[in-house]
Amino acid sequence: MTDTSFSHEIRVSWGDCDPAKIAYTGRLPSFALEAIDAWWETHLGGPGWYHLELDRNIGTPFVHLSMNFQNPVTPRHRLICEVWPTRLGDKSISFCVVGSQDGKTCFIGSFTCVFTIADQFVSQSAPDPIRKLVEPHIRPDLS
Amino acid sequence: MTDTSFSHEIRVSWGDCDPAKIAYTGRLPSFALEAIDAWWETHLGGPGWYHLELDRNIGTPFVHLSMNFQNPVTPRHRLICEVWPTRLGDKSISFCVVGSQDGKTCFIGSFTCVFTIADQFVSQSAPDPIRKLVEPHIRPDLS
Amino acid sequence: MTDTSFSHEIRVSWGDCDPAKIAYTGRLPSFALEAIDAWWETHLGGPGWYHLELDRNIGTPFVHLSMNFQNPVTPRHRLICEVWPTRLGDKSISFCVVGSQDGKTCFIGSFTCVFTIADQFVSQSAPDPIRKLVEPHIRPDLS
Amino acid sequence: MTDTSFSHEIRVSWGDCDPAKIAYTGRLPSFALEAIDAWWETHLGGPGWYHLELDRNIGTPFVHLSMNFQNPVTPRHRLICEVWPTRLGDKSISFCVVGSQDGKTCFIGSFTCVFTIADQFVSQSAPDPIRKLVEPHIRPDLS
Repeated sequence: MTDTSFSHEIRVSWGDCDPAKIAYTGRLPSFALEAIDAWWETHLGGPGWYHLELDRNIGTPFVHLSMNFQNPVTPRHRLICEVWPTRLGDKSISFCVVGSQDGKTCFIGSFTCVFTIADQFVSQSAPDPIRKLVEPHIRPDLS
Repeated sequence: MTDTSFSHEIRVSWGDCDPAKIAYTGRLPSFALEAIDAWWETHLGGPGWYHLELDRNIGTPFVHLSMNFQNPVTPRHRLICEVWPTRLGDKSISFCVVGSQDGKTCFIGSFTCVFTIADQFVSQSAPDPIRKLVEPHIRPDLS
Repeated sequence: MTDTSFSHEIRVSWGDCDPAKIAYTGRLPSFALEAIDAWWETHLGGPGWYHLELDRNIGTPFVHLSMNFQNPVTPRHRLICEVWPTRLGDKSISFCVVGSQDGKTCFIGSFTCVFTIADQFVSQSAPDPIRKLVEPHIRPDLS
Repeated sequence: MTDTSFSHEIRVSWGDCDPAKIAYTGRLPSFALEAIDAWWETHLGGPGWYHLELDRNIGTPFVHLSMNFQNPVTPRHRLICEVWPTRLGDKSISFCVVGSQDGKTCFIGSFTCVFTIADQFVSQSAPDPIRKLVEPHIRPDLS
């Protein structure tokens, strides 16, 4: 059985915080996206979306995101983002991202992207090498 | 009948775009949040969340956001964000934000915040003046 | 004599501010850049750097920026950014940007870009149409 | 002799890049600031400016920044930011930050902050514990 765990650490800084002294809500989707980008980087062996788009001509634009916020994010601890692909459709892929600090869950998010031929910006089925790479990691129970 | 329409215009710039030549997904929640902040500003007569938090000691941290992306956002047109409150609970408020460019819908999002006593970061019921201000604008049909 | 004045208004929001209740220093260069992008937009008749790069194959990467900060930027007033080109060399262009709120100067910055053939990322002389467009607006006294 | 070297690693991502396929200029000052924040974190034993401001009531607003850009920053390599304090005046502190990727210098920047009593936003002399902490690390040759 493949170990599907992947976690990405983010250093939350002063500039991420708003006058309420917590990370600004607008930063939180970016943190989750960075974690998904890092997931791709680790599994592709190239720099994430940058590699997919520029070296492989594969785009993965987002069609949906949803996040629940349970505890504030602050600079007092590193933000640990766990990432799992939860579903691989013919033309789409979904991810779950859970962000936590000091053992407490801060947010849970779900994200769906479609595959495109990057330089034409038209939809395509998930390319085979991507499918092979992703499938062993899918966790449908987290979707 | 109160006119509930409110729209906020955003200038999308080069720096908002990623190498796919469209606004980066991570920027889109921030655009929607900026539109909600502008909604508060217009209806409060003070600078949005900054005014609520610092002048009125009312916080409105987000507990949920959800967005669907239908068309890419680019610098070729201004981004028009329409904002409506869709529900005012005892302790929470929800908004719908629709972003469009050149007449095409780019994204539709829903957002829920809770009310807090800002300097204590504890939950509170929606303060009366806020309730009075929001109620005439609520559009439950858009929730 | 050409009127060289150009100003770009920016709505500073809650999310631009840090826990010191003022716009985060890291946002201020971005505000100035947005103003330069808007300067190009107004004078080119297309969406700034996006238009230059994608429609005209002209890149203008920055080689230098310098800013002095005199007063904090907050959401209480709109930020007015005045922009002037101050020098047009064979292969470079410099701008001055002055940001103010409520009549008080917040920052003064100087910025230098070089011209490139965008899709080759190699240096070029300022293209003639750009030279003609810029020259009437140059204010060497502000460099 | 104290070893004054400090370096902070930044993961540059897709979302940091613009359509020219390099990190957007507006992101580069933020990278340098994050590195200075990390310098404080390492030397203070608390989360940087967040700790200084909220736990020690010491603010360090920026009065100046200047950066030269020598090579583009991309997601293909980690960005290594070296940070040194270069001068400690009575009421101000200056830093040098050098950012490099894959052994090539991308930018060199200088930054000056003043000390304030954070909750009063008034200037103060560098507090003694800060002075003691900073002095062994100063590299005047890099100013």
